[in-house]
This record gives sequence, structure tokens and C-alpha cells, in this order.
Amino acid sequence: MDLYSIKNPSFLKKYSKKQLEDLAEEIREFLITKLSRTGGHLGPNLGVVELTIALHKIFDSPEDKLIWDVGHQSYVHKILTGRTAQFDTLRQYKGLSGFPKRSESEHDVWETGHSSTSLSAAMGMAIARDLKGEDYAIVPVIGDGALTGGMALEALNHIGDERKNIIVILNDNEMSIAPNVGALHNVLGRMRSASKYRWVKDEMEWLLKKIPAVGGRLAQAAERLKDSMKYFMVPGMFFEELGFTYFGPVDGHNFDDLFENLQYARKTKGPVLVHVITKKGKGYHPAETDKIGTWHGVGPYKIESGESLKKKGNGPAWSKVVSDTLSTIARDDKRVVAITPAMTVGSKLEDFKKEFPDRLFDVGIAEQHATTLAAGIATQGMKPFLSIYSTFLQRGYDQVVHDVCRQNLNVAFGIDRAGLVGADGETHQGVFDIAFLRHIPNMVLMMPKDENECQHMVNTAIQYDDGPIALRYPRGNGLGVKMDDELKNIPIGTWEVLKQGSDAVILTFGTTIPMALEASAKLEEMGLSFRVVNARFIKPLDHLMLQEILEENIPILTIEEHALQGGFGSAVLEFIQEQGYVQTYVERMGIPDRYIEHGSVNKLLEEVGLTTENIVQKCIQLIPKKQQRA
Amino acid sequence: MDLYSIKNPSFLKKYSKKQLEDLAEEIREFLITKLSRTGGHLGPNLGVVELTIALHKIFDSPEDKLIWDVGHQSYVHKILTGRTAQFDTLRQYKGLSGFPKRSESEHDVWETGHSSTSLSAAMGMAIARDLKGEDYAIVPVIGDGALTGGMALEALNHIGDERKNIIVILNDNEMSIAPNVGALHNVLGRMRSASKYRWVKDEMEWLLKKIPAVGGRLAQAAERLKDSMKYFMVPGMFFEELGFTYFGPVDGHNFDDLFENLQYARKTKGPVLVHVITKKGKGYHPAETDKIGTWHGVGPYKIESGESLKKKGNGPAWSKVVSDTLSTIARDDKRVVAITPAMTVGSKLEDFKKEFPDRLFDVGIAEQHATTLAAGIATQGMKPFLSIYSTFLQRGYDQVVHDVCRQNLNVAFGIDRAGLVGADGETHQGVFDIAFLRHIPNMVLMMPKDENECQHMVNTAIQYDDGPIALRYPRGNGLGVKMDDELKNIPIGTWEVLKQGSDAVILTFGTTIPMALEASAKLEEMGLSFRVVNARFIKPLDHLMLQEILEENIPILTIEEHALQGGFGSAVLEFIQEQGYVQTYVERMGIPDRYIEHGSVNKLLEEVGLTTENIVQKCIQLIPKKQQRA
Repeated sequence: MDLYSIKNPSFLKKYSKKQLEDLAEEIREFLITKLSRTGGHLGPNLGVVELTIALHKIFDSPEDKLIWDVGHQSYVHKILTGRTAQFDTLRQYKGLSGFPKRSESEHDVWETGHSSTSLSAAMGMAIARDLKGEDYAIVPVIGDGALTGGMALEALNHIGDERKNIIVILNDNEMSIAPNVGALHNVLGRMRSASKYRWVKDEMEWLLKKIPAVGGRLAQAAERLKDSMKYFMVPGMFFEELGFTYFGPVDGHNFDDLFENLQYARKTKGPVLVHVITKKGKGYHPAETDKIGTWHGVGPYKIESGESLKKKGNGPAWSKVVSDTLSTIARDDKRVVAITPAMTVGSKLEDFKKEFPDRLFDVGIAEQHATTLAAGIATQGMKPFLSIYSTFLQRGYDQVVHDVCRQNLNVAFGIDRAGLVGADGETHQGVFDIAFLRHIPNMVLMMPKDENECQHMVNTAIQYDDGPIALRYPRGNGLGVKMDDELKNIPIGTWEVLKQGSDAVILTFGTTIPMALEASAKLEEMGLSFRVVNARFIKPLDHLMLQEILEENIPILTIEEHALQGGFGSAVLEFIQEQGYVQTYVERMGIPDRYIEHGSVNKLLEEVGLTTENIVQKCIQLIPKKQQRA
Repeated sequence: MDLYSIKNPSFLKKYSKKQLEDLAEEIREFLITKLSRTGGHLGPNLGVVELTIALHKIFDSPEDKLIWDVGHQSYVHKILTGRTAQFDTLRQYKGLSGFPKRSESEHDVWETGHSSTSLSAAMGMAIARDLKGEDYAIVPVIGDGALTGGMALEALNHIGDERKNIIVILNDNEMSIAPNVGALHNVLGRMRSASKYRWVKDEMEWLLKKIPAVGGRLAQAAERLKDSMKYFMVPGMFFEELGFTYFGPVDGHNFDDLFENLQYARKTKGPVLVHVITKKGKGYHPAETDKIGTWHGVGPYKIESGESLKKKGNGPAWSKVVSDTLSTIARDDKRVVAITPAMTVGSKLEDFKKEFPDRLFDVGIAEQHATTLAAGIATQGMKPFLSIYSTFLQRGYDQVVHDVCRQNLNVAFGIDRAGLVGADGETHQGVFDIAFLRHIPNMVLMMPKDENECQHMVNTAIQYDDGPIALRYPRGNGLGVKMDDELKNIPIGTWEVLKQGSDAVILTFGTTIPMALEASAKLEEMGLSFRVVNARFIKPLDHLMLQEILEENIPILTIEEHALQGGFGSAVLEFIQEQGYVQTYVERMGIPDRYIEHGSVNKLLEEVGLTTENIVQKCIQLIPKKQQRA
């Protein structure tokens, strides 16, 4: 089979098992080769090769709806639906998305990125289908990790109750992103080890007949005993209890087993759960033997050895600076506890975990619980540090408002991957957190200019005793600056002038500081004197410094790698208005009011106009404006 | 017992069962009498009288931590912890809160309001306790309705896995706020009807001995059969599967049963779930026989008849206008589907449900699922209308960002209880939704000035075909205006001038329009001409009208019953900055950057300065400012 010639999955219908096995082999080779150059989610996709082929053979996409939870395991689906040729551009600017995209193909009926949404989507489609009197299969494919997300459990509860025809494929690889956690994981483990329904059933019936006939209360007991047999015969009783017909466990790399169960599932009325056991990284030794999640998503690598070819950044990873600093503080301060929602590897907390195994809590994909858990810990005088990606903190918004900030508890947030994240694209950009946190009373929000300031901010967050505090830091690596030996405490609400200047002032923070400094240097050459301020506190602003600037009556440019609506620049506008400085001229640069797709961060910054050159232009425009009004 | 003499619950230790039963009786009478005057959550509290007494007898609060999920059932706890005398001020300004409040008592160790947070809080406290080497009981009390909230399920998953000593009291009254829904509810139903563990156990063992000895594969089967007996003997297998030791079902109005099980639970290591069956409204006939949730939270009533003494508002309830309009549209438009997270009664969707039983989906307390469910429905060309309280939409924030707006799906949101809600207080104020929705790309956000405009906005929302759209409306009743017979479509992003004026302009929307008009009339008498604009679209703003105002260069006052940070006023500031109108003088009125406690809405508006008088003052100040700059 020439993978490049595939237009749609209909060819699979006529394929023999042998042909399908060969196809699976080719797809694996293709993925291992292509992703060694582009990077991507290798492990998850190698795990679902046979499953995806089987789904496209048994079901008729796009009439039948295949919904990929999380979505990073949709590469095989993309190959089978005619997108092989685009894999050279995977996760690159204007290239193939690493997630399902409705604009890419009619076979992508639902877009994902964040986990645990597929069951709600499926239920929504089922409601629409049934009201319209249509008849097609709806097949969400959800991992065991994503299943522990609260919204997936909410959806299971609803689906099981309404008894809609939905075929849930539980893709159980015993890992979500990293090794899985939680009681439900243990439930699944018991199911995996349970024998199959079919062979046991006959023998059980024989056995039941041997139970003597009894009367009275015992007759009732015997009846209930027979009822309880279903617990014995059906390993998936947990799901049966919730109203699902359970099929499995199914070997997710065995076509016969897959076909048989999927066909049964297709014929079954009401909600069905097919429990498929797969092996993440299947067929590529380094990925298959990965125990901690390193091969979940990767950059380019050497095929033979699996060695990473990723260019190292100048400095240490931001996440690493944060977690190392946390370890340093935790050595002396027993109150420090770290929490992560399934991101021990991503947030580089492995070393913290090794050193403080009883003070690191990986709660699985459960951001709501993670946030309120931190609040609960804080009520007892401890110092919880919740390490969480900006985009995933969106899931904990109500918990920040209602549990953490309202009770004004000492929870420290490490908001990882703040700003543009690049290849993961629009579902993962961390460009809303200022807007969704800034209006919450009691919250302190800051962002460091470099990794040295970052370590001081971690310290500041832990030492702060007046309520919630958050530092946001970007994806990737720091600038390579020298690190101070002693941790400092940065006074809350203080900015710092990085470069003096008298014609106008640039207020910015975090990743946009280097380009502001560069722009300012260029402007200097043109005879324009621009001050650059590290506005490291986004809330509260540095009221004293802002007052001084307003008194000077010079133009202000705010720059942020964040949405313009409700962002830092808006906070500055609000302050100026509140202080009654009507005459101050302000310009704001940031991310416009639309979703930003995937691509390298630099490419995306260029797209939204956050470049040194644009800053220079904006600054030049600021000056005559000032003169006009003088 | 004189309830007013209670200082703390220690007296319960010496009380006999008879004394406790008398106490329960007195508490019931007290609640029925007091709440008939103040209103409050009668049903939930009558249901937990014995349970609360039993918890305070068996456990030692505040060393042992009693955590009240949702919290509106904490009245009995408040009586037993010395707050009887304050009940005259229940839910009133500066009076006793209707929810646990840490500032009220050391016995209130965790504050609630939104549901499903107690298990995460308990787990947080357990982590802190164990790390500090302390030893006390942690006892979250959670309803069967709250248990279906995703974050509660996330927490169950974590607690069951970590095996912390936590005693979960499942207060199962077969209703949450309204009758309960969901598969988990069915699971609980089966548990309720199951016989007790203890008496069955002996007989089962006898029965098991009768099973003949068998060899080979059957021996294995027989072994597994014996294992499966636990499913039979323990009705709470669902929770046992998740790692909990299950006690129950327990009669929640029988002290002997309560004491026995709570004492067992206290001695048991690891997580325990005590399944307590209670009757909501127990002891007061109108509340006890309530099937739909009317007696969940009530205003003042006649004790004899249960008849409501609530003063009727001028117009129909806002929620009723919305749901009636939805019904009208749904009659002709088969695409319309309504969704509510457990608020069929609160959002007045009963009539819609009666008329369109297959097009109303009550998903239980599950806001995340509700939001993405709506998105799923919208993918299939239907028109979902998600009716959801402003404060509860906070739970669906990520789903709005990631599923609805990012995919630009035609989901209509009816944001109920927007603005200050009054007696429920700081956990329930709907004062953040503009700030957390305004920065989301593709979102349209509006608010009607009266119930007539409200019906047109519901229609506008359903007719809108370019993506997500939300209308927010307040708690309580409309103004009593005449309703148009024909539904109109309001052009997106258009404001209307309600009163002409040339000195300055007031931009406001929704509930603050009447006071703006009143202020404007008073100003007129002083010779000041203030225009009043119904800024009914919060996003997008009316760019044309704003441009015209900016061209006039008159001062602008924005007024909103919403947080000032990131709110409507900020949107106006952003627009003015973007358009480069430096010289426009703007003032903003709204809710300051702190949580607003309970009290009547009028009292709270006064507290935050949103009064006609203050508007007049602010307006007078605006004019000289304009003159100074002219």
C-alpha cells in the first residue's frame, strides 16, 4: 500500500487481515521515520495503529462519527483519511495540525486538544442524531488517563442514564501522558487481569445449577446470589453499574479480537464501552519501553538510538528552574507541597518527586480537584505549590475564584507554558490567563524577566503570606543568565527600570522584554530615548512607578504576549483612568481577538506583530503623538 | 434545651438518645419558625437534623474537621456551634451567612457555596494532617447530587487511590436541588434497596459451603465466585471498587443506626464512605412532600399552609421570560434544545420540559459536561440553549474557551442570575462573567434593559448563525413593561439611545439603566444634559455609536453591576485607546476588587456605591473636568 495514495478509508473494507497487518507495519514505519524529523506525539500514535485501522474498517466515517479525545493520537486517522503527504509539515506554521481539525477533513468531526471532552461531544451528537431521526454510530475514543477528568465522568453519568447509542472506546494503555494514577486506574487494572466473559459463562451456569434449592429468606438470598453472578462474569461491572454494556478486555493489537468486539458493539443497543488494551509506543523499542512518558511527545530524534536531536536552549528550562527552586526551598521549609495534574514530566518535577516522594501529588488529569486540593492543604498552614499549564488552569477557573481566592488562602500557582506554546497550537496557547485571573480579588500575578528572577519569584510566592499568588513562565528555555546564590524576596507590586529613557516608556514583562530592549537600543540610535520597564507584577501594578510616569506625562507603550482584551495593557488603561490622567497617550501591543494556530513561537509572534521591528515602528509613532499634544 | 444557650457542641457527649431526639424536635421547630420569617434553605436543613447532631456527638469539632459540601445545609451545625441568636439576621446584610464562614466560627473549617468541593478540601486537609504527623478525623458531608459534579469524582478517584483516612458522609436524599439525575443516581438507588451487609453475611457463608468442591478450571471459577460474593454482600461495591470501605445504607433519622455506623467508620483505617439516607424537608409536611425542589430554598412562608409570603416583583421573573420565549421559538424551530445543570426549577424550565420533554436535558450538577454537550449538539446543526447561572458558568470556563468558542459553534447561553444575587452572598454573585467571557474570541455578549428586550435577545441568540452568543439577565423579576407580540432580531453590536443629552453620556446596560435614567432626570433639573445609552451589547461594542460619541468629545460615564477589572468599562477604555481618542474623559462605576457578601441587592448596590445619588454626583464631577480641558 502506498500510504500517499490513500484518499479515504473505504479501501479498508476489502482488505484481508494479512493486508491490514502489512498496512499497520507500513504506518508504523512511516510514523517513526517522519516524526524523527518533525517531532510529534509518537508514543500515543504507535499505540493505536491497529485500533484506528479497525475502527475505520468496521465503521463508516464520516457518516459514523469518530471522536478522538485529546486528539494527539489522531495521526493514523489522518493517514487513513488522505493526509499522508502533509506529514512533512506536521505541527508547523500553516502545516498539518497535530490535533483533529474540522477545516482539514470531513472525517474530523470534533476538535480536541484538552482531554476528557469526547464523551460530552458524543452525547451532544447523539442527542442531535436522535432528535433528527438519523441513524449512525458515534464512537468516542478516550484514554484511561482522560477518563479520570471530571467532565468525562460527568458525561459517563449522563450517557449511562439516558441510554443513548454511543460506543465508547476506552483506549487503556495504563498511561495517560505519564504513568496513570487514581483509584479508577486500579479498577481498570482489575478488569485487565480478569478473565474473559465468554468462556467463563458456561461453566458458571453449570456451577449455579449445583446450588441447592432453598426456601424462605435463603431463597431470596439465592436469587440475589444469582444476580451477583454478573459481577463475577463481567469484569467491567464498574461500567455496567453506570449503565454501559461492557466488552473486553480486548487486545488492541489483535485484529480478530478488535473486529469481533467492535462488531458486537455496533449491534448492541444503548451505551457500550469497549475496553481496548494497547501498548503506547508499540513497535518502536525506545518508545515501547518508556516508563515515565518521555516518548509521549517528542522533538526530532535519531531513529536507531532514540537520541533526541532537539537543540538545547541557552538556559535551563523554565519549568526546571521553578521545580529546582521549589526543591531548594522545600529542604528547609517542611510546609512546601507540590501538586501537578498529570504533568510530573512536563513540569519537570521528577527530581522533586525523587527527593520528596511524600510531598509531590500527581492527581491525574483533574485540574479542578488539583486547585481545590491546594486550597484544602493551605487551610492547614501548609504551602501548596500548584504547577499547572496556563491552558489547563482554565479548567480550574471556578476553583480559583470560589475556593482559593475567595477564602484568600496561601496557594502558590506556577503557571507553566504561559504565552504562545507553538506546535501544539490554538488549543494549548497560554494567552488568556491574565484576563481570567486579573479580575479575581486577592490574586497576585507576576512574571519573571529571566530565570534568575524566576527563582526569586518562586521564593516570593512561597514566602508570601497574604493569600494566593501566581507566577507565570513560558514554555522552553531561559536566557542563560547567571543565577544568584541566595534566594530573594521581591516586594509585591514593584517594577524595575531596565533602561532609562525620557521620551516615552515601554511597560512589558516576561518574554517580550528582550525585544523591547532591542527596540529601545535601535531607537536610541535614532535619537529617541525610550525607557524600558520590567512590569513584573501584573497584579497589583506598581502604582508608585506608574504615578511617576503619569506625572511626567510621556507616552506609554504596553507589550504583552497575551490577549489584548482584559490583559495587562487594559490594567494600565484602568489605572490611568482611575487616577484621572486624561492626557496620557497609550498604545498597547499584544495578541488580537482570535485563536492563534500552531507554528513555531517566533513565526506566531511575527504573525501577531510582536517583533522588534514592529515595536520600533510603534514607538516612532508614539513620539509625534506626544508632540502634537504638548 | 434552650437552643440559645448552646455555646459549642460538647454538651452532646453526655446527652441520652431521648434527649437528642427532643433536641432534634426543638431544632426542627426552630428552623420552621425562623425560616418562615427570613426564608432560607429549609428542605436541606430539616433533612440533616439527626445527622448533624450525630456527627457532633461522635466527632470532636473543631479538632475533627466537619466539611459541609455546598454548605446550605449547615444551619443545624450553626445552631450546635453557638449561633442560634443570629438566625434572625440569616442571609441579611451583615447578618448570619447562609453558608459556612470561617470568620463566623472555628467550627467552620471550609467555606462552600458551589457544590462538589468538599472531597478535594478533605483530601487537602488529610495531606496536611499526615505530613504534620497529626491525628484527627476529616468528615466531608456531600449530597448525592453534588457527588455527580466532576470535581467530586476527580477527588474520589484521588482519595481512593491514596488511601487517606477520610470519612465521607454521603447524604443521600434522592434529590440534589431538584430530583436527581444520572447513572450514579441509579447506582445509589440499587444500594438503597439492597439489604444490609450484616444479616446476609452468615447465611451467604452457609450457602457457599453447599457449592460442591470442584477441580481444574472450575476450582478457579469457584474461587472467583467466592471473591464475587463481596459484590453480593456489600451493596456499596461501586465505592469499594474505588478503594473506599462502604458502610450503609444508614437510616439518617435513626440515632442508633447513625451512631453505630459513624463509630465503625471512625475506627476504620483508610477512606470510608458512610451512605446515609435522609429525607429532605423531614418533619414539615409541605417540604417533606415536595417532589420538584420548591422547598429547597424559600422566601418567607405561612407556617400552617406553606404558602409563600414573597412579595411578587413588578414583572415576570427574568428566567421565566427566557424560558417562555424559548418555548415559543421551539414550537416552530425543531433545532432548539434546552440544557440545564440541575436548575430546571431555578431557571423556570418546567413548562419547557412539559411541552418538550425530549428536548430538555437536565444533566445534573455538571457544568463542564453541560457546556461541551451543547457544543456537541451544535456540531450537528441544532440550536442548543444552555441555561446556566453566571456563577456556575465559572465551572464551564475552559469548555467555553476550548470547545464552544474555539470551534465557533452556534451555542446560545442564557446566563441567569447575572449581577448581584443578594442573600446567597459572595459565593453566588454573578459579577465576573463579563470579565471571563469578554476576552474569548468569537463570543457575543449582551444584556437586556427589560423583559421585552429580553425576549428579543433570546430570539436573537437562537437566530444568530455565526457562533456562540450569550445573554445575561439578573435574578428576580423584570420591570413589568409591555411585551411585544412579535419576536424581533436585534442587530448584533447595536446600542440604543434612551435619552438624548449633549453634555456627557452614560453608557450602561441591564439593571443599572433605571438608575441612570433617574440620575439623568435629576441632572436635567440642574441644567445638565446627560445622554443615556442602553449599551446592550457588551461584546462587540457599538463601534459606530462610540465613534460618534468620541467625535463629539464629551465625557463618558460607564456603569455596570459587575467587577470593574476587565469589565464593560474596560472594554470602552480599550476601544477609545485603540481609536486613538486621547482626550476623552472617562469615569467607570462598578463593583470594586473584592468579594461582595450577602444582603439584599439594594443594600449591596448601596455598599458598592451603585446608587442614583452616586451617579448624579459622579456626573456632576464629569462636567467641570470636561470644562477644564476645553
